[in-house]
Amino acid sequence: MDLNSKLPHVVIVGGGFGGLEVARGLKDLPVCITLTDRQNHHCFQPLLYQVATAVLSPADIAWPIRGILRAQPNARVIMAEVTGVDTAAKIVHTDSINLPYDYLVLATGATHSYFGHDEWEKDAPGLKRITDATELRRRLLIAFEEAELTDDGAKQRSLLTFVIVGAGPTGVEMAGAIAEVALQTLPPEFREVDPASARIILIEAGPRVLPSFPEDLSAYTQKSLEKMGVEVMTGTRVTKCDKAGVDIEGGRIDAHTVIWAAGVVASPAAKWIGAPADYAGRVEVLPDLSVPDQPDIFAVGDTAAVFYGGGKSVPGIAPAAKQMGKYVAKLIANRIKNKPAPPPFAYKHQGDLATIGRRIAVVKLPKPDFALKGFIGWLFWSLAHVYFLIGIRNRFVVAFTWLWQFLTLQRSARIISQVPKWSKYTAEEDT
Amino acid sequence: MDLNSKLPHVVIVGGGFGGLEVARGLKDLPVCITLTDRQNHHCFQPLLYQVATAVLSPADIAWPIRGILRAQPNARVIMAEVTGVDTAAKIVHTDSINLPYDYLVLATGATHSYFGHDEWEKDAPGLKRITDATELRRRLLIAFEEAELTDDGAKQRSLLTFVIVGAGPTGVEMAGAIAEVALQTLPPEFREVDPASARIILIEAGPRVLPSFPEDLSAYTQKSLEKMGVEVMTGTRVTKCDKAGVDIEGGRIDAHTVIWAAGVVASPAAKWIGAPADYAGRVEVLPDLSVPDQPDIFAVGDTAAVFYGGGKSVPGIAPAAKQMGKYVAKLIANRIKNKPAPPPFAYKHQGDLATIGRRIAVVKLPKPDFALKGFIGWLFWSLAHVYFLIGIRNRFVVAFTWLWQFLTLQRSARIISQVPKWSKYTAEEDT
Repeated sequence: MDLNSKLPHVVIVGGGFGGLEVARGLKDLPVCITLTDRQNHHCFQPLLYQVATAVLSPADIAWPIRGILRAQPNARVIMAEVTGVDTAAKIVHTDSINLPYDYLVLATGATHSYFGHDEWEKDAPGLKRITDATELRRRLLIAFEEAELTDDGAKQRSLLTFVIVGAGPTGVEMAGAIAEVALQTLPPEFREVDPASARIILIEAGPRVLPSFPEDLSAYTQKSLEKMGVEVMTGTRVTKCDKAGVDIEGGRIDAHTVIWAAGVVASPAAKWIGAPADYAGRVEVLPDLSVPDQPDIFAVGDTAAVFYGGGKSVPGIAPAAKQMGKYVAKLIANRIKNKPAPPPFAYKHQGDLATIGRRIAVVKLPKPDFALKGFIGWLFWSLAHVYFLIGIRNRFVVAFTWLWQFLTLQRSARIISQVPKWSKYTAEEDT
Repeated sequence: MDLNSKLPHVVIVGGGFGGLEVARGLKDLPVCITLTDRQNHHCFQPLLYQVATAVLSPADIAWPIRGILRAQPNARVIMAEVTGVDTAAKIVHTDSINLPYDYLVLATGATHSYFGHDEWEKDAPGLKRITDATELRRRLLIAFEEAELTDDGAKQRSLLTFVIVGAGPTGVEMAGAIAEVALQTLPPEFREVDPASARIILIEAGPRVLPSFPEDLSAYTQKSLEKMGVEVMTGTRVTKCDKAGVDIEGGRIDAHTVIWAAGVVASPAAKWIGAPADYAGRVEVLPDLSVPDQPDIFAVGDTAAVFYGGGKSVPGIAPAAKQMGKYVAKLIANRIKNKPAPPPFAYKHQGDLATIGRRIAVVKLPKPDFALKGFIGWLFWSLAHVYFLIGIRNRFVVAFTWLWQFLTLQRSARIISQVPKWSKYTAEEDT
């Protein structure tokens, strides 16, 4: 790839579902693509909770971005963090090199939103990246190890209390998986403490779990979780997170481990380009996903505020990011070929899936309009997720690992991967 | 398990090959076993280099110790770090609880020895634990990423120079694997820099690589490595490691990545009990592996200085640790049953194995006396290692991953698992 060529330069920021789709969609065009990401890997976020709960290894759901694009000669990948964009000079600044662009695609994703309380993050981390997942795995596994060592009853109860804030798909999946860890996987392995005495509490401010699903599936999900041992508290708002637990309206829960699955906020991409953003920081793009007054800059995925079906917000899920990425690639291709622009972007909602446990999931598809639940839903969920993984090896290993877990209840990635300096850790957590 | 029972308490420090073998050997005896380790997992060290070079995931070669002993009701596992031993009161002190013992087994393994230059460690880390492997993987992968971003020729050459100090099995395996990463896996993925221009330099102070093998296999190994692109420097002593490379007698090599595979030193177990130790910190045990004047304390594996075949030191390899663990379990069992002690420990050397590349290995077995090299050696090596892994799932996944790598040259665990704060990292490395 000749960076000094006269070909149009397309810079894509972010190697998630949206950014990759743009790069792939420009595969056969006479352009120079630079995809930059601060990580070296694309992460299959829908399965992050399985890394956090010790079923899968990080490498099972993450691939080096440059490996994904290795066979595309017009694309190069760099590992760098964007620090700003000079829209007048058309240059993206990173912490290492500068990237001149003719077209710029912002596909930088979202992170957790603590509704103005960022100080809660260290005590209630969320789940967006591989490092979040390994951090949560560490906290989860260490809680049981520490509970085994203490004979202070109150401390032990707190160590064995797991609070998940937010009952969207991630919250539901985490709650179900932690219940399985505590009630199924660990009990035969501890001698002093009973992991099955753990409390797993799922807190939701809204009136029901899985608000994006039909009401009967929400009810089914709540009942299933309760049967698995999860306490579900709907209509309950968390007013504070600290190192010893959470405050809820009219109460307090002492919990050593708190997981945040409640809100997301877009990356600061809108600020880089001085574009209008909505309450969640998403760029308010035009119907063709371009930025107002900056027709060569586009935002896709969680970075863009897009609506469909009479004003509903396009959800922050992988298929939505992919559709937007595909659309922007098509639009750029048409411009380069001097063809007319495609019609405005139209989101097609393909459905909602959430798994509750090792063999229960809920599925709602709009077209054809049907719902699945229980074991058949779980089979559908499993096949869909294996299908969307990248690479034969990973599909095979993930499918085999799930089969193995299904048969044995074992979780094969129960590694506390950093040397825990107990004294330091407990000093931070318990003082 | 009743910790207040009158049954003899056996405390085992360390969940490596030796410690686990002791616990298993006491399975059916009326004892209370406590195995303590500062990690929650047993690590299959012979394959650590495959984690460091992005073939396998940590969880593929590591298992929770309490999972391994789950079906042994007379054993409990705790995750705690030993801080000292009160041999008069017969109590092991840890950073959390105290462990009274009737029998104590020290199976604490070894760490890197820098021959009095511990300050070299941060610039030339070794490979003993999972965290060492992920740290080396990170350094290896980041070196190529950074080389792609720089146009400073000298810096790029340093980034693409990998020095491995010490040509025992670990050094040989790392050198071969890094050569494969640089020359086979990465070249199609980079656009600016050519990973195949990397220099991989294996430095050995002694006269030949793999000194524990017969001379013809050493010569074969050196020739194979050189054919793969590794520069082998025997008879060369490293006199200094720093952040920019190494000094050797009569020269200097600028290298961003230096890996230490030269020396080992036992853990400080000898100091805990005030026992005599040899130059490498190993406890000088009696012929029954007990500590002089402390007949209820034993040392096994890398913690013990043991000799065989007319004064040769028993090597620090898994089969040796297992044999010692089995012996000590038998000895404790006999004492408890008031049976006579078994004859003194006699080490049986089962052979030496080292893999050089994706389909070349050398094998030397004493009984029956035969040697293998090349592809047939690699097959033998692969089968032996898959056989010795723990758990059906891991055997299956590792075997499949190797088959996959063999067919595709891909390395499936190329994840840089922490957010690299480039500025900070480069500040540390390059100033």
